[in-house]
Amino acid sequence: MKHTSRDIRTANRYEVLRHIIAESPTSRQELASVTGLSLATVATLVGELLELRMITEVGFEDSAGGRPRGLVAVHASGGTLIGVDIAETYVHVELFDLALNVLARTEEDLRPGEHRPEQVVGHVAAAVDSVAARAGAAGGRVLGVGVSVPGQVDRDTGIAEYAPNWDWHDVPLLDLLSEHIAHPLHLDNPLRACAVAEQWFGAARGRGDTVVVNLGTGVGAGLALGGGLHRGVSNSAGEWGHTTLVLDGRPCHCGNRGCVETYVGAPGIMLNLREACPDSPLLRPDDQTATIEALARGVADGDPVAVRVVRDTARYIGAGVANLVNLLNPELVVLSSWVARRLGGPLLEEVREAVRLHALARPFAATEIVLSPIPSDPVCLGAATFALEGTLRSVGQRNGVRPGRTASGAR
Amino acid sequence: MKHTSRDIRTANRYEVLRHIIAESPTSRQELASVTGLSLATVATLVGELLELRMITEVGFEDSAGGRPRGLVAVHASGGTLIGVDIAETYVHVELFDLALNVLARTEEDLRPGEHRPEQVVGHVAAAVDSVAARAGAAGGRVLGVGVSVPGQVDRDTGIAEYAPNWDWHDVPLLDLLSEHIAHPLHLDNPLRACAVAEQWFGAARGRGDTVVVNLGTGVGAGLALGGGLHRGVSNSAGEWGHTTLVLDGRPCHCGNRGCVETYVGAPGIMLNLREACPDSPLLRPDDQTATIEALARGVADGDPVAVRVVRDTARYIGAGVANLVNLLNPELVVLSSWVARRLGGPLLEEVREAVRLHALARPFAATEIVLSPIPSDPVCLGAATFALEGTLRSVGQRNGVRPGRTASGAR
Repeated sequence: MKHTSRDIRTANRYEVLRHIIAESPTSRQELASVTGLSLATVATLVGELLELRMITEVGFEDSAGGRPRGLVAVHASGGTLIGVDIAETYVHVELFDLALNVLARTEEDLRPGEHRPEQVVGHVAAAVDSVAARAGAAGGRVLGVGVSVPGQVDRDTGIAEYAPNWDWHDVPLLDLLSEHIAHPLHLDNPLRACAVAEQWFGAARGRGDTVVVNLGTGVGAGLALGGGLHRGVSNSAGEWGHTTLVLDGRPCHCGNRGCVETYVGAPGIMLNLREACPDSPLLRPDDQTATIEALARGVADGDPVAVRVVRDTARYIGAGVANLVNLLNPELVVLSSWVARRLGGPLLEEVREAVRLHALARPFAATEIVLSPIPSDPVCLGAATFALEGTLRSVGQRNGVRPGRTASGAR
Repeated sequence: MKHTSRDIRTANRYEVLRHIIAESPTSRQELASVTGLSLATVATLVGELLELRMITEVGFEDSAGGRPRGLVAVHASGGTLIGVDIAETYVHVELFDLALNVLARTEEDLRPGEHRPEQVVGHVAAAVDSVAARAGAAGGRVLGVGVSVPGQVDRDTGIAEYAPNWDWHDVPLLDLLSEHIAHPLHLDNPLRACAVAEQWFGAARGRGDTVVVNLGTGVGAGLALGGGLHRGVSNSAGEWGHTTLVLDGRPCHCGNRGCVETYVGAPGIMLNLREACPDSPLLRPDDQTATIEALARGVADGDPVAVRVVRDTARYIGAGVANLVNLLNPELVVLSSWVARRLGGPLLEEVREAVRLHALARPFAATEIVLSPIPSDPVCLGAATFALEGTLRSVGQRNGVRPGRTASGAR
């Protein structure tokens, strides 16, 4: 059986805390009303969250004619969470309170070629130490550290199975990290981090089946289906970037040809630009970020080459998103990650039009397509959310198997 | 919340009955062991199934040193189920006992152009009457009628929203059928019928996430994810046939170009043959079935054109299945429906090789690809299973909303 009553209790605990984070203070009655859970169930879940010191009692409100209702709110200083975004060229680390406000952030650059696991782990450890020191100053114990690493990840064993851009194979990343970090660790990849960030704090909160399309150097899709994340049998679901859109098309580093990523990942967009205008001044060789920013400015200024390249790119994205719409019939598609953020509204408009042209009319009509509303790094936020979920899963699991992994020396 | 305790009880009821159908007689202890449910839960579920007369007590077996264990088995004559497969050129109707053995079958041909809803409904009603008469002779009350109709279906309202090959739009099919058929009716489409047939009686029984790829005149994918069917927000998930594989490729009747279906649906395969050898004697214009059968015989005989066309077709199927593997990371892919059955083992081998070439190595290694083991029409079987599931869902729902739809005059 896939769904146990434990799964349901955990999902309900997520749901209640999500609502409290979204709207504090609130009452048990209000929570029962918005979640559809019984008042008794809500009271039990609220009790657990109070015991975890994740929420706190903050007074009473009048109820029409009845007894005053107790109010609860996030106990922002009840603990802290750390989110780690390991990317190709940098490590971002952010410290959050329990309302998922950023308390501190730090960034370590990875120099070109600096990709050996122990080098990357050294940067992560230094950055985590740096923000964890500030957690002490903020008075908050660190409840957990979520780590996002690109590629395919076994979150149970903590092994980074395959990171295509670094040629990592079966790196025991969590074991390496736990030599330096004495907090519970939770490993996953950026697709799932972005998806869970949208579920808790972004466009997907309170919505049904959602696909979070990550547009960055690599591309992929986080699948929030049936109230949870669809991970697949080996936690590698979501490799939309490596679905074929143009049979026998551009070669991809994965060995296939015509993958979505070769047309809409940042290097693919640079190639779209080079094909449209080989000596365009918008093209900054070897600098993806500068090129995407130049394209964004070009579109704003009405530069015809920039407009054309963004439209071409949007056509590829739209055809690929239409495949997701036809196959999965989601309620919501969220465009996330840095390329989507930088190209913004003009890209969104072109993508919507391209999806309309490629998708079946009925699933298209049932799907809303939006930009991620998350203002900060959604990968750090999502990674921290994995640590939050891990803490919530552990409720009542005394002496049992811990979710995620607990590093040696952790409390 | 997506998953309620009612959902879990229903899923557990399915699971227990599935095991009893697969292996009768069996004991509550054995059922608890194979399902992982507690003995108390199993005892409750078995009690419900006994009360529904779907199973029956059939004696005792010795247990080593303990009390004899009560045995239960499917009560094959406890009722009957009818499955209806409305296809482009025919209506198949089959009558099943509760072990889902076929008791009777009948077929009505639809003449070319005979596609008006009332014409189709007339054929369905006649065929259902015919097999229902034999249900009476078999001593079994008809518990329900499941109906599969191509295209997009709203199973709650019973409306056939869109059937592309017939240009049906928003046909109130269940209302039309209920004027003739006085049993509970359950409407859905062939993708989901084939998927549920594999879950209950085929390759997916007891397995994790499974994609059932239907290869017929139209093509699509039934998605058995997280222990249930993934339907999407408007019950149109699975339109794999209308995902783009060749951007700007062959025109598709859906309005898009390069859809998977234009290369691997039966008419697409005929076009592959025509392109490979315009005047091949294997080609039977206007007869898909005869052409596919000629191709199958040609492959068996080593005809180079047939071998090449099946290989070309398998390459398209394989690239499309690789997209499903990369995106969904399923444990199992089942090739179903009549084109897969007729081209059989040689097609399967070529498809496996093509998937290997197009998919990422790790999700490919985690996925098994098989032919459907279901010997009869999987759509009729799956449609009857919808009626079975509907009966199981209704347990304890007295005076409440009925699952599926109950026709006027139904008991």
